[in-house]
Amino acid sequence: MSRENKFVKREKWSKDFGSWFRDILLSAEILDYRYPIKGFGVWMPYGFKIRQNILQIMRDLLDATGHNEVLFPTLIPEYLLAKEAEHIRSFEEECYWVTHGGSTPLQVRYALRPTSETAIMPMVRLWVRSHADLPVKLYQIVSIFRYETKATRPILRMREVASFKEAHTVHATAEEAEAQVREGVEIYKRFFDEICVSYLVSKRPDWDKFAGAEYTIAFDMVCPDGRVLQIGTVHNLGQNFTKAFEIDYETPDGRREYAWSTSYGISGRAIAAPIILHGDDHGMVLPPKVAPIQVVVIPIPYKGREEQVVDVSKRLEETLKSSGIRARADLRDDLTPGAKFYYWEKRGVPIRAEIGPRDVDRREVTLVRRDTLERTTCRMDDVVECVKALMEAMTKDMRERAWEWLRSHVKRVGSLEEARQLLEQRSGVVELLWCGRDECGLKMEEALSARLLGTPFGEEEVPVEGRCVICGAEAKCVVRAAVTY
Amino acid sequence: MSRENKFVKREKWSKDFGSWFRDILLSAEILDYRYPIKGFGVWMPYGFKIRQNILQIMRDLLDATGHNEVLFPTLIPEYLLAKEAEHIRSFEEECYWVTHGGSTPLQVRYALRPTSETAIMPMVRLWVRSHADLPVKLYQIVSIFRYETKATRPILRMREVASFKEAHTVHATAEEAEAQVREGVEIYKRFFDEICVSYLVSKRPDWDKFAGAEYTIAFDMVCPDGRVLQIGTVHNLGQNFTKAFEIDYETPDGRREYAWSTSYGISGRAIAAPIILHGDDHGMVLPPKVAPIQVVVIPIPYKGREEQVVDVSKRLEETLKSSGIRARADLRDDLTPGAKFYYWEKRGVPIRAEIGPRDVDRREVTLVRRDTLERTTCRMDDVVECVKALMEAMTKDMRERAWEWLRSHVKRVGSLEEARQLLEQRSGVVELLWCGRDECGLKMEEALSARLLGTPFGEEEVPVEGRCVICGAEAKCVVRAAVTY
Repeated sequence: MSRENKFVKREKWSKDFGSWFRDILLSAEILDYRYPIKGFGVWMPYGFKIRQNILQIMRDLLDATGHNEVLFPTLIPEYLLAKEAEHIRSFEEECYWVTHGGSTPLQVRYALRPTSETAIMPMVRLWVRSHADLPVKLYQIVSIFRYETKATRPILRMREVASFKEAHTVHATAEEAEAQVREGVEIYKRFFDEICVSYLVSKRPDWDKFAGAEYTIAFDMVCPDGRVLQIGTVHNLGQNFTKAFEIDYETPDGRREYAWSTSYGISGRAIAAPIILHGDDHGMVLPPKVAPIQVVVIPIPYKGREEQVVDVSKRLEETLKSSGIRARADLRDDLTPGAKFYYWEKRGVPIRAEIGPRDVDRREVTLVRRDTLERTTCRMDDVVECVKALMEAMTKDMRERAWEWLRSHVKRVGSLEEARQLLEQRSGVVELLWCGRDECGLKMEEALSARLLGTPFGEEEVPVEGRCVICGAEAKCVVRAAVTY
Repeated sequence: MSRENKFVKREKWSKDFGSWFRDILLSAEILDYRYPIKGFGVWMPYGFKIRQNILQIMRDLLDATGHNEVLFPTLIPEYLLAKEAEHIRSFEEECYWVTHGGSTPLQVRYALRPTSETAIMPMVRLWVRSHADLPVKLYQIVSIFRYETKATRPILRMREVASFKEAHTVHATAEEAEAQVREGVEIYKRFFDEICVSYLVSKRPDWDKFAGAEYTIAFDMVCPDGRVLQIGTVHNLGQNFTKAFEIDYETPDGRREYAWSTSYGISGRAIAAPIILHGDDHGMVLPPKVAPIQVVVIPIPYKGREEQVVDVSKRLEETLKSSGIRARADLRDDLTPGAKFYYWEKRGVPIRAEIGPRDVDRREVTLVRRDTLERTTCRMDDVVECVKALMEAMTKDMRERAWEWLRSHVKRVGSLEEARQLLEQRSGVVELLWCGRDECGLKMEEALSARLLGTPFGEEEVPVEGRCVICGAEAKCVVRAAVTY
């Protein structure tokens, strides 16, 4: 059942996404981007709690699949970063460099980590002796730094990415590394499902893979303005890093072999994703799992009954809290109920519980869900069950809506010209037929003024029939293209 | 009741604390200090979990007292760091400086934050307009960086302190800032009580306060080698930072006033503190609240009964887990029970549960507490209650032992000579009479080759009778001295 028609107005959200988003970040107290270094921001208290809830979902998924959380240093000596040739070539112009300790020039320059493969590998080398020490599955949540030359955007393109989750694994065989890539992809799918974000999974073209990887699988979402945002990547690093860092191990039969490695990461964009996807002109709509406050209780005072509605509101807060629901009664007496509605709608609180004198008399409570603003009434005795059911329904509807949004923004097209027009209108992702050769792919990017996201990954293989839109040779696959952030 | 006599052997711990500690950090997989930059280390999986448990205790205390967690940037532009004159004078030679983005020299140098007052103040300036916006109470848990010229030591003196908890508060009046300092001290007391660490609270001498503070209150503990380790500080910053950063606010009667601020921090040393204080020659002894694994279940197989003891061990693990106890059955079949005992004793697991055939027959379990290695037997039906009671008793005993240790390492002395001898023997902290003048204090430090920790803070005022050990004038206070880390 579609609830599309029940959406709250989304005019500003869809017509001027950029300013809607910047506006929400400050007014809902998510991230203050006015810090005096370009591309550096401050996670404010409310935003920090959203961030923690989302990262906790990720931690739970990684812990449940045998990953161990660790913490590696922020600085990487230049000679380590340079060990893998492709890697340094891509990152050296993007690194911030530490050159002095006090007024003393350092003998070796240190990079602020742009990613941690080259910090982790020398330590793994110390830890791995034999096949019994493998696999190694680590992750950390840290700041990474990229001296971006493109225009920065709050959360979407920062120079300090303060919420980078990076996982790094090392394996005995190519097959295990391959299987790990699939596990990484599955973890990310579950993660985005949990936070009500829809995504395309694509194998990036060769010229767009991670520096030092054999291949890269990427997650992309479609923003309100039709542009596409990369929200996660999974890399098979083959033996490129293990050879560069000399990570070998003793096999059961006593030979020495180089190990295989993978890495996969999500950034602050994963935190922005549900905010972006489910916003409307009233503000944010947060999935209940993600929301710092799941139910806000607002007393509707009426002359002579003020104390009563406040009492009942307080008790309701306690009832909900003791059932593990993150609830808060807003008892501020310098704001009208209307002003409170406005305040909490902007902040995306999933459910508003209103307590007026009539609710008190009838032992009822009025519940309003944030995504549709639909009102329901429930008996006070049943309120915990009602709230739980409402949160579940809301989560399900939000997830469905996210996928509807994605489906309506991916179009299979027959010609370059059709693709060009759709991309010009910023209609999302187009899928074209491709012979699979780099040469034609690069020509396609140029002709479309767009980026190739790559070929569908992990979906049922459907035989492709037709011809490459560039060279006219028999098509080998479908390729996705979009205008990206 | 003292359990001092029941201690496990502590010969290596007490006679060669430095190597005991380095050894434990690697062999119990806490922190690997072999990262190729001096003073930078890697928090390994087991150490990371200890760190998380300890930091969670701190988060709970701060959240319960109205502090909001945030995340500020890692980099601070030089001109901001320089705004408070004392502050920059102290820190500029200790900062790592970022000078390049890629190969481009930056127009402004950035410091890796040595502490965050000067990153936070410019943002607070944007957030505070009137008295209604005050107080501001923030905290963050981040890496800080100090280019130390002293010899680095794993966890105790790092160049990257990867577990720095810093709180920053801003207030309308001097009285509120003063009260906040006391709240900060109370929070730290409760924190160290929770993790079974004993401490002295002292007001640091004027020449040893934080750069930019009006005064500094510090927490110190005594290490096995008799040297003293600072484990927390609370600063009253007066109006030094608010004036430098022009943080003023509108009072209820419409005037503009400068605000007042405080800051308080703990570092990775707070994570090391319980490890240091409760170690013995078998390894770590972790307070149950801090331990990643609270109960390790070890099957003691006996010919023909192997399957049975393993089954019961698994069930015990499940029983304990479902009661919220962090339990793990060690079912590795390539290790003897003795090797497992050794392994988990080193890692400080508070309780070992042994399951042998006789335990199975009697429906019993043998419990061994880590601090004393005492064995008790309990009925399987009562195991959850027994384990909980044992953990409580152990926590209480560990806390008592920590305070006994401290009491036996603080001595009131009558003369400089006596103090000098005790400090030479590394017997801990000495307390001397002092006239309170800087001149005499500095002479005392020189004569003792020690550091003055300062005067007792927050203890019942006892009138001091006697004369300053340096100048012979009437003493105003007691002052503590010690050889410090």
